[in-house]
Amino acid sequence: MFEKVLAAKKRITGHANITPVMTSRTLNHLAGAEVFFKCENFQRVGAFKFRGAFNSILQLSDEEKARGVITYSSGNHAQAVGLVGKLLNIRTIIVMPDNAPATKRAATEQYGAEIVEYNPDEAEREQLARDLQKKHGYTLIPPFDHPEVIAGQGTAALELLGETGKLDMLLVPCGGGGLLSGSAISARGMCPDCRVIGIEPEVADDATRSFHTKTLHRVKNPPTIADGTRTSSLGKLTFPLVLEYVHDMKTVSEEAIKEAVRFLFYRMKLVVEPSGALGLAALLSRSVAAPGRVGVILSGGNMDAAVMRLILGDN
Amino acid sequence: MFEKVLAAKKRITGHANITPVMTSRTLNHLAGAEVFFKCENFQRVGAFKFRGAFNSILQLSDEEKARGVITYSSGNHAQAVGLVGKLLNIRTIIVMPDNAPATKRAATEQYGAEIVEYNPDEAEREQLARDLQKKHGYTLIPPFDHPEVIAGQGTAALELLGETGKLDMLLVPCGGGGLLSGSAISARGMCPDCRVIGIEPEVADDATRSFHTKTLHRVKNPPTIADGTRTSSLGKLTFPLVLEYVHDMKTVSEEAIKEAVRFLFYRMKLVVEPSGALGLAALLSRSVAAPGRVGVILSGGNMDAAVMRLILGDN
Repeated sequence: MFEKVLAAKKRITGHANITPVMTSRTLNHLAGAEVFFKCENFQRVGAFKFRGAFNSILQLSDEEKARGVITYSSGNHAQAVGLVGKLLNIRTIIVMPDNAPATKRAATEQYGAEIVEYNPDEAEREQLARDLQKKHGYTLIPPFDHPEVIAGQGTAALELLGETGKLDMLLVPCGGGGLLSGSAISARGMCPDCRVIGIEPEVADDATRSFHTKTLHRVKNPPTIADGTRTSSLGKLTFPLVLEYVHDMKTVSEEAIKEAVRFLFYRMKLVVEPSGALGLAALLSRSVAAPGRVGVILSGGNMDAAVMRLILGDN
Repeated sequence: MFEKVLAAKKRITGHANITPVMTSRTLNHLAGAEVFFKCENFQRVGAFKFRGAFNSILQLSDEEKARGVITYSSGNHAQAVGLVGKLLNIRTIIVMPDNAPATKRAATEQYGAEIVEYNPDEAEREQLARDLQKKHGYTLIPPFDHPEVIAGQGTAALELLGETGKLDMLLVPCGGGGLLSGSAISARGMCPDCRVIGIEPEVADDATRSFHTKTLHRVKNPPTIADGTRTSSLGKLTFPLVLEYVHDMKTVSEEAIKEAVRFLFYRMKLVVEPSGALGLAALLSRSVAAPGRVGVILSGGNMDAAVMRLILGDN
């Protein structure tokens, strides 16, 4: 799998941003560790998702490209697929619930993606996407459970470890497990002693339970502010990868997530969405003990005004 | 003067951050230019002010250092002097109005600075600082009108031009003119063809009027959201420097300033305070015509929740 990440890195070079690694004296003092933030909020479309979308779509055959790509997402993956389609001149179709926020829909449409609406009370998005795929011959690029999507997401940790050298620990947000398993594969390849820990909201702890019990657990519409982690469960590919490559899973409270977003805003001047701040939340709330050199992936920065205003007003 | 900036750069190296230069494909497309942002929001204390404070205070004699440093400011300069005092183990006294926001006062006190309050209806801050200076033998480090403060502020543009190479235009916020004159001195030294343009809020346009009439104009408590530019006028040193080194002055509306802060938040994932966003406001509102390669100094990122919430809610 590590070879797939290395190959992905070659494919995305010159297309994805090499995002900066930032540090904070204040945080190092607070955490008693030397912390390196990989700033995927500065990635194209504002989140790491561009990496996996580009890596997977680029490898389609000319015939597949001509038929178009479909996916289901109302979040960062939708925007990533839309932008990659625009860059590679490929038709993209996004299955999105009819109650998706207007801003997210507009952000996806601006890249030229076609939106197919569905009523989430009546239909199931994966099934709808598969039906359209069969009918029209589209290629499905799912948000995380795809080997080339996972390999693409792994390039963020690859770049981080290439820049920082040896790390003792790497903290990675976990939704469907694409970023987490990709990061863990990179860490195993680059720095086998680095402990990779996945972080989830307490109220969306399906992957943490799945990891500890080795049985797949699910959540349904968990009430977390970290909307990127509301995915119902790990996938067929990501679950075994997480079991094999990840060292531990930890959870953080909603309050810890908001506190981390505030720290990034006030002290580091970074706009990071709640899902993106999970690793810092674990450090600040001491959900993980972190001596030594610690990498934290800030996975994205797409947040609407209502969420930011809620978080800033909440103290 | 350029030699002073070069000497300042040597002094601050290893103490001030070399802040990153960032770009935005979206903005380049919108502005029809290639824009380079010097991100002083990532400077220590969250603003360029650390540069001038460190450069000036480091050069005091041991006797002056032992007696302590005084200044007047309720903003970023106060925090900068406080932090430099802490780093160099020098006592610092800040004259601050008794109605200064609690957050700004707390941020200054956390560095160990002593606050002297005054009632702005009864006293004038410069006079109060001078009285205390005489009485106690402190050294006054004013917020902008001081040759070594100006030279220190000039190091931001020096770093920017060193990284980008030749620029056609440089846009710099203007309050008291320390950053603007320092930047213009650096541009003259590094890239004499670069047009340096100072940007002010329309409702605080004293420096623009002073520049065009060659007579010093003043404003009193202008109602701008860009609190770093509420300074009443250019100074005895900065006014002639602005006349000599700066090519033009332009103003932007309050709405353009808010729009620029929103663009930085949503599209670039950067927290930049209103004063820091003036250069981008000039680009987005077409107050300046900007073909070619344009540098923009994002001067700081210190903004409290109320200001951010107001700006995010205002569209």
